[in-house]
Amino acid sequence: MSRLSSRMVSLGSARSEIRELFEYGKERAAIVGPENVFDFSIGNPNVPAPDDIQAITTKLLENHDPVFLHSYTSAQGDFESRDNLAQDLNNRFGTHYHADNFYLTAGAAAALSIVIQALANFGDEFVTIAPYFPEYKVFVESAGATLVTSPAEIESFQIDFDALEKAITQKTKAVIINTPNNPTGAVYSKETIQTLADLLTQKSEEYGHSIYLISDEPYREIVYTDEPLPWVPSYYRNTMVCYSFSKSLSLAGARIGYVLVPREVDEFEDLYAAVCGAGRSLGYVCAPSLFQRVTAQSSHLTSDFSIYRRNRDLLVNSLRDMGFYVAEPGGAFYLFPRALETDARTFIEKAKKHDLLIVPSDSFGCPSHVRLSYCVPTERIERSLERFEKLAKEYR
Amino acid sequence: MSRLSSRMVSLGSARSEIRELFEYGKERAAIVGPENVFDFSIGNPNVPAPDDIQAITTKLLENHDPVFLHSYTSAQGDFESRDNLAQDLNNRFGTHYHADNFYLTAGAAAALSIVIQALANFGDEFVTIAPYFPEYKVFVESAGATLVTSPAEIESFQIDFDALEKAITQKTKAVIINTPNNPTGAVYSKETIQTLADLLTQKSEEYGHSIYLISDEPYREIVYTDEPLPWVPSYYRNTMVCYSFSKSLSLAGARIGYVLVPREVDEFEDLYAAVCGAGRSLGYVCAPSLFQRVTAQSSHLTSDFSIYRRNRDLLVNSLRDMGFYVAEPGGAFYLFPRALETDARTFIEKAKKHDLLIVPSDSFGCPSHVRLSYCVPTERIERSLERFEKLAKEYR
Repeated sequence: MSRLSSRMVSLGSARSEIRELFEYGKERAAIVGPENVFDFSIGNPNVPAPDDIQAITTKLLENHDPVFLHSYTSAQGDFESRDNLAQDLNNRFGTHYHADNFYLTAGAAAALSIVIQALANFGDEFVTIAPYFPEYKVFVESAGATLVTSPAEIESFQIDFDALEKAITQKTKAVIINTPNNPTGAVYSKETIQTLADLLTQKSEEYGHSIYLISDEPYREIVYTDEPLPWVPSYYRNTMVCYSFSKSLSLAGARIGYVLVPREVDEFEDLYAAVCGAGRSLGYVCAPSLFQRVTAQSSHLTSDFSIYRRNRDLLVNSLRDMGFYVAEPGGAFYLFPRALETDARTFIEKAKKHDLLIVPSDSFGCPSHVRLSYCVPTERIERSLERFEKLAKEYR
Repeated sequence: MSRLSSRMVSLGSARSEIRELFEYGKERAAIVGPENVFDFSIGNPNVPAPDDIQAITTKLLENHDPVFLHSYTSAQGDFESRDNLAQDLNNRFGTHYHADNFYLTAGAAAALSIVIQALANFGDEFVTIAPYFPEYKVFVESAGATLVTSPAEIESFQIDFDALEKAITQKTKAVIINTPNNPTGAVYSKETIQTLADLLTQKSEEYGHSIYLISDEPYREIVYTDEPLPWVPSYYRNTMVCYSFSKSLSLAGARIGYVLVPREVDEFEDLYAAVCGAGRSLGYVCAPSLFQRVTAQSSHLTSDFSIYRRNRDLLVNSLRDMGFYVAEPGGAFYLFPRALETDARTFIEKAKKHDLLIVPSDSFGCPSHVRLSYCVPTERIERSLERFEKLAKEYR
C-alpha cells in the first residue's frame, strides 16, 4: 500500500481534462497538421503584453544594481511597488488604499490559496456560484474546509439569490465570486453586487459573525459591457480582492498578483497577519521581485483586448446561428454554450472527431455545457466554424 | 473571539525575529547613520548575479515573442528548461536524469513545501538535524505531520548518528538534510552521507517501509572544502533534491528552483504525480516562466563566491581571536558561534547595544548560539570587529 499522500497523488494524477485535450491535440496535429486542430481548451492569453512591458523590463535590468533587482523583497512585496498599486486603484476607483493593504503574490491562484488558508478553520464552509473555477474546491479542501456551491441562473449565469440565500449557513466563512467569470464570461452589474452585499450583511447579522466576500478578479479589465465593472469593496465592507496581472497584461507566466485587504474589513490587523502567515505556511517567500516592479509600473496599462471582443462576437453570433444556446459573455475570454446533448463528455468526444477541442462543463460544477476559450487567433475561429456547423448538424 | 485561522494569524504575527532586527536597524540607522549599523541578520546574497544573467534575460526579451515568453508553461515547467537542467546535472555528477525527473518551483521553500505535502499523511514524522532552517517546522506542520529534531554534534554541527538513530521510528516518513547548512555552514562529507544512507537503508528494512531523504541544497555550490560536495542521490536511492537558484546565481527574488525526483525512488510515478498534485493544491500554477529559461541557460554558472570565503576567513579568525567558540563553516554564508552567555536572546540584546544585529539561535532549534550572515560587504565586517571586541570584553 502506498504511504504517499493519497490526496496529492490523486490531485496530480487526475491533473485535468484540459491537459489530456492538449496531449490529444498534439497527437492529432502530428497527423492532420497543427492548422487543422482547433484547440479552444486553454485560457492562455494570445494577445501579447503591451509593448511597454519589454521597455520597462529592459530599463529596470539596465538601470539597477542586480543585487537590488534580484534580492528577496519583504514577504508582503516591495513597498514602492505596493504603493504604486494602491495609487493606481485609488485613481481608478476613488478608494483610499495604502501599500499596507496589499500582499503581493505569485498570481491569483496563490492569492486565493492564501486568503482561504488565512480564513479557514476546520468545518468552515466557503460558498461559490456554480459553474465555478475548479481550483476553488482544491484550495478550500487544502485548508480543511468545504466548498458549497450554489447554482447560477442557468439562462444568464447571473446569481440566483434564492439559491444563494439557502446555501449560506451558520458555517459560512466566506463567499467567493468571480466577475468577469471563468468559465461563463458573466459580469455582475452594480445592482447585483448591491443585492449580494445586502444579503451578506443580513446573513452576517443573522448568524452573529462576519461573512467575508472574496472577489476573484483576474479578468477585471476584460469587460465588454457599457457600464464599468463595479468596484466590489465599495459595496461590501468585508471584501478581499484577489487579483492577477496574468490576463490584463498577458503575463500569465510572470506569476504576479495580489491580495488586497482593505482597512475596513473586520479584524483587519489579524487578517492581514493571517495572509502573511498563510503565504509563509504554503512556502511563498515573496512574489517574483523583477515583475513586482514591472507590473507596478504598468498596472494602468492593458493588452489590446479588441481581438477578444471580435472573437466573442464572431463565436457567439455564429454558434447561435447554428442553433446553440449561448449566454452572452460580458467579459473575460470564455464562452459557455449548452452542449447539444445532456452528457457534456459524450458531446466533446463528438467534437473531437471534428478536431474541435473544447472542455466539458462537469469539472466546473455544472452539467451539459462546454467551455470554449476564445483567446486564440481570429482566423482559427473563422476556419473552425464549418467544423462546428458539421457538429451541430449531427444533432438536427 | 476571532474566527480567522489562529495558526495563520500567529505565523504571520510572530513573523520573525529577523524582521524585528531589520526594523530596529532602520530606526538605529536614522539616528547613528546606516554605516554605523552592522546588520548580520539576513541571508540575502550581496554578490551580484553573474553578468551573463542580464545578457541572457535581455536576449530572451528581445528575441522571443512575448506570448511565448510570458505564457503559462506546463505545471512541471517548460520542457526545454527541464531538459537543460537534467543535462547540466548529468554533466556534473555523472547521473542520468531526464526532463521528467524535474518539477520546477518558485524557489527551494516552495520545493520543500511541495515535497513534504506530497509525502505526508496525518501522524507522520519528518526528522531533521538541529540546528535547522525554521521553515521546516512550518511546512511539516502545514502538512499535518510532526517535525522531530535530532541534535547535531555540538562542536562541529555534524550529524550525531546515535541521536539520529533514536529519532527515527516506525512513524518516520522522511529525513531532511541541508548541506551546506543554514544556519551553521556545516558541510557533510561523502563518508557522512554514506553512513546516513546505510542507516536509512537499515531503518527502512527494520520498519518495512521506505524512508525518504529530502536533500535541501540551496547552498550546493557555495563550498569552501577541498573535497567536492557528494551528490546525495548517488549514495541513497530514495532521495529527492530541493534546489534553488537564489544563492548560486544570486537570484533570490526570481523565485526559481526545483524538486528533483529520480527515477530510482520507490513509487516514482505516484510520487512525481503527488509532487504535481501538491503544487496544484498549494496554488502554484507554474514557476515564473521567463526565469525558468534564464536559469536553465545559466545553471552551469555561479556568482563570484570569493567574497564569501574572504568574509568567512576574516570573521572566523577574528572572532576566535576574541575568544568566541566558532565551528568552521565548510559552505554557505552563515557562521554559528556560541553566544557568550547561555541565553542567546540576552546576548543579542547586548550585541544590539553595539549596533551589531545578529540572530539568536533559539528559532533554529538550538540554544546558546547566534547566527551571523556574512553575505555582506567585507568592509562592514572589518569595521564591525571593534564592536565585537567590545562585546566580548564585557564577558571577560
